[in-house]
Formats: sequence, structure tokens, C-alpha cells
Amino acid sequence: MKTIDVCLSPDLIHLHNLKDKNVVIVDILRATSCMVSGLAFGIDHIIPFSNLEGSQAMKAEGYLIAGERGGEKVEGFDLGNSPFDYMDEKVVGKKVATTTTNGTVAIEKSRAALNVIIGAFLNITAVVNYLKQRDESVIVFCAGWKGKVNLEDSLFAGALVERLQNDFANECDSPLLVQAAYQSMKHDLVGFVKNSSHAKRLNRLNVHKDIEYCMKLDVFDLVPILKEGKLVLL
Amino acid sequence: MKTIDVCLSPDLIHLHNLKDKNVVIVDILRATSCMVSGLAFGIDHIIPFSNLEGSQAMKAEGYLIAGERGGEKVEGFDLGNSPFDYMDEKVVGKKVATTTTNGTVAIEKSRAALNVIIGAFLNITAVVNYLKQRDESVIVFCAGWKGKVNLEDSLFAGALVERLQNDFANECDSPLLVQAAYQSMKHDLVGFVKNSSHAKRLNRLNVHKDIEYCMKLDVFDLVPILKEGKLVLL
Repeated sequence: MKTIDVCLSPDLIHLHNLKDKNVVIVDILRATSCMVSGLAFGIDHIIPFSNLEGSQAMKAEGYLIAGERGGEKVEGFDLGNSPFDYMDEKVVGKKVATTTTNGTVAIEKSRAALNVIIGAFLNITAVVNYLKQRDESVIVFCAGWKGKVNLEDSLFAGALVERLQNDFANECDSPLLVQAAYQSMKHDLVGFVKNSSHAKRLNRLNVHKDIEYCMKLDVFDLVPILKEGKLVLL
Repeated sequence: MKTIDVCLSPDLIHLHNLKDKNVVIVDILRATSCMVSGLAFGIDHIIPFSNLEGSQAMKAEGYLIAGERGGEKVEGFDLGNSPFDYMDEKVVGKKVATTTTNGTVAIEKSRAALNVIIGAFLNITAVVNYLKQRDESVIVFCAGWKGKVNLEDSLFAGALVERLQNDFANECDSPLLVQAAYQSMKHDLVGFVKNSSHAKRLNRLNVHKDIEYCMKLDVFDLVPILKEGKLVLL
């Protein structure tokens, strides 16, 4: 039987063998929610960079450049890390180069995987359907916050494990843990996430609206996938 | 207000500042359950070693030596890692040197802490009372399994967070996550832990009885603490 495992932090990814597996990158607040929204809204493709310089250099190639550090847009960049930046007329048909505190780092660390796809509550059913159709085992890779485990990514992982439990066997204990947490919080996901440390951090930056949006289920029926270093729609 | 945080794996401990804090070491199956039981049963003190050689060398000093790797007793050692080995007439009044796959590694990585204490379901209320009386913040340090997050240590952390929630503020999201998982599983902790990966690993070694014992609440009203490298009773 295919297996599923959950990596709760980029600082634990060395414990997982990604070879021949599908990796789902999760950074709910807000990198993967932005990627899903932006590609749905008409961005041609997105190139993720783990550092600011990489993203910045793409300006000369005609890319819109997106940069976030510590939850805030980097000065001089075209886009920040709000999904609403990614759902604007100005992005339609454009190429985007992006770097974020956690999400793009997780993508960088997933190079050994067979396929790297982008997961968010916004496209969770599309992700579930993709993984069910494939023959490979899965690693759900939570981007966390600077190495620490965070609530919203863990709850997404729990929601995914619950939806896949008839098709995948748990490889270790992390899937059990996140699924149990999800079961206990699923009646009010938005409420619990608003009380998480990252949401409190973001609330100070006035992005309350972003949080409510990023917790919506199945706004888009599509799966972004990494092809030759570029995120495109399947 | 005092804070509480949970470190879910020794591979994440670098993200925590232990200075001036009380660290609770947790390795339910079975290192910390053994330590609590053995000290309750009359062991004089226990010296934890992160490697086999360190423990073995103490034989010449008159210590009973305890060693476990991958869940099994190491050949030539006096004790394995079953709590029942630690509740035998032969340990009364003796000094013990021990090394285990995960638990003693976590102790080794906690050197910067103000106090290092040993937690298990067997002494959970004593641990709660100790932490409530003290003025310092707390890190619950789960030993996990070879770096991976495990269910039984995470659930103990959740049980501890729940019992301390009126006295400590959560420092980050891990306490929220483990508390939610605990709430969803507390009606049948033994049942869920028996389905965990570590329990399945141990079941192959015929230590079913150990698991049931290690999940018992409040068998002992005592707290082991590290003093000058030795675990003794407070």
C-alpha cells in the first residue's frame, strides 16, 4: 500500500527519503495560498527562490518580483506575500519570481522528490484527487515558521491525512498526531488558527483578511506543480 | 506570565533557548518511565549516557549498567529498557548507568537548562505540581524516535500543557498542536498509542505489558531531577 508521512518542519526533512515520492509543500500563511491563487488568476509561472537576491535578479528578465521576510513585503519588490497581491490585474499573463521566509525554503529542500506540488486549503480537494490517482507514496512537507512547527500547516496536513486515510498507510506517527489535532479543531479551524502564534504575528501587520481567505476550502480546482524549477498548473 | 513550549524532536532543540528554564524530558516508551520507576523502587541514582561506551565503563565503578538500542537490551548489560527490569530487588540501593536510543540523547542536549527533570505518565501530577511551584518557564522536550516525532511523547506533552494552561502561556504553536491531539485521543490513550509506530515496533519485541504499564497515570508521586550529572529524587 502507498504510504503517507508528514514532515512538520524543514529542520526535520533530512529524516525523510523523498526519492520516488510526491511531496506536498504547505505554507498556508501565506506562500502556498499565494501560489495557488496567483496561478489560478492567470500568472504564467512562478519561480521560487530561497533567497532575496535570486528573486531580485529576475527583474531584469521581465519577471514581477515577490519578496517577503518576517511577514512583510520587502522594499522595492513588486509583490508581497498577500494572496490579494496575487489576484490583481497586473499579474495576468506575467512571470513571477518569489522568495518567502519559509515556503520557498521548503521547495528548495524537496529537490530529491519525484513530484513537488503546492497544497493549501484553497485547493485541498484537487490535491487529494491528484495524490489518489498517482501510484507513489506521499510526504506532506509543512514549511513551519523559521524551523518551528506551526498550527495552520499542521492542521492542513491533518486534513489531508484524514481525506487520504483509505488510500494510504501512515508511515510513522506524525500523520496520527496531526489528524488527531485536526479532528479536535475542525469545527472551528479559523478560530483556532487566529489564536496561533503566526496569526498573532500577522495580525500585528493588519492581514486579518488574508488569514480568513487562506483558510477557505476548495476555492480553486487546480494543482500547481514544479516543472524544471517553475511552478505551473498541471 | 511564565511560558511553556514543546520541542517535538531532539533535531529541533536548537530552536529553543533553554537558559533559565525548566526542561521536562519525555521518553514514555520507555526511558523516562524506567527512570521514574527505578528511582521509586530504590535505585540510589542514575547516570544517563548518550553512548554505550560511557555506560559500559561504569561497570568498573560498581554501577549496574543499562543499555538499549533499537528497543532491545544490549548484550552483556545488566538491565534493558523495560520498566520491570527497574523494579526488581537487584536494583535496590544500587547505582545505575544507562544509555537509550532517544531519551539519554535528549538529556545530553539539555545541558543549558536551569533544571532538567524527568516526566512520564507515571508521575505526571508530581511534574505538574513541581512546575507550578517554580517561577521559570518550561520546555517539554520529547525524545521522539531517532529524530522523528512520536505519538506517545507528543500526547504526554499535550496532557502536560492541558494541566498547566492556567499557569503558563503558550510560547509558540507546538503546545496548541499537542493539546488538540491529546483532547481528541484522551478517551483512549492506550488504544491510540498501541496503534503508533513505536508501539508496533515494540510489540514485535513482546513488550505489550510495558506499554500498558507506561501509560498508567500517577503511579508515583515523585520527580527525578538531574544534579551534577546524576538523576536523583527531588
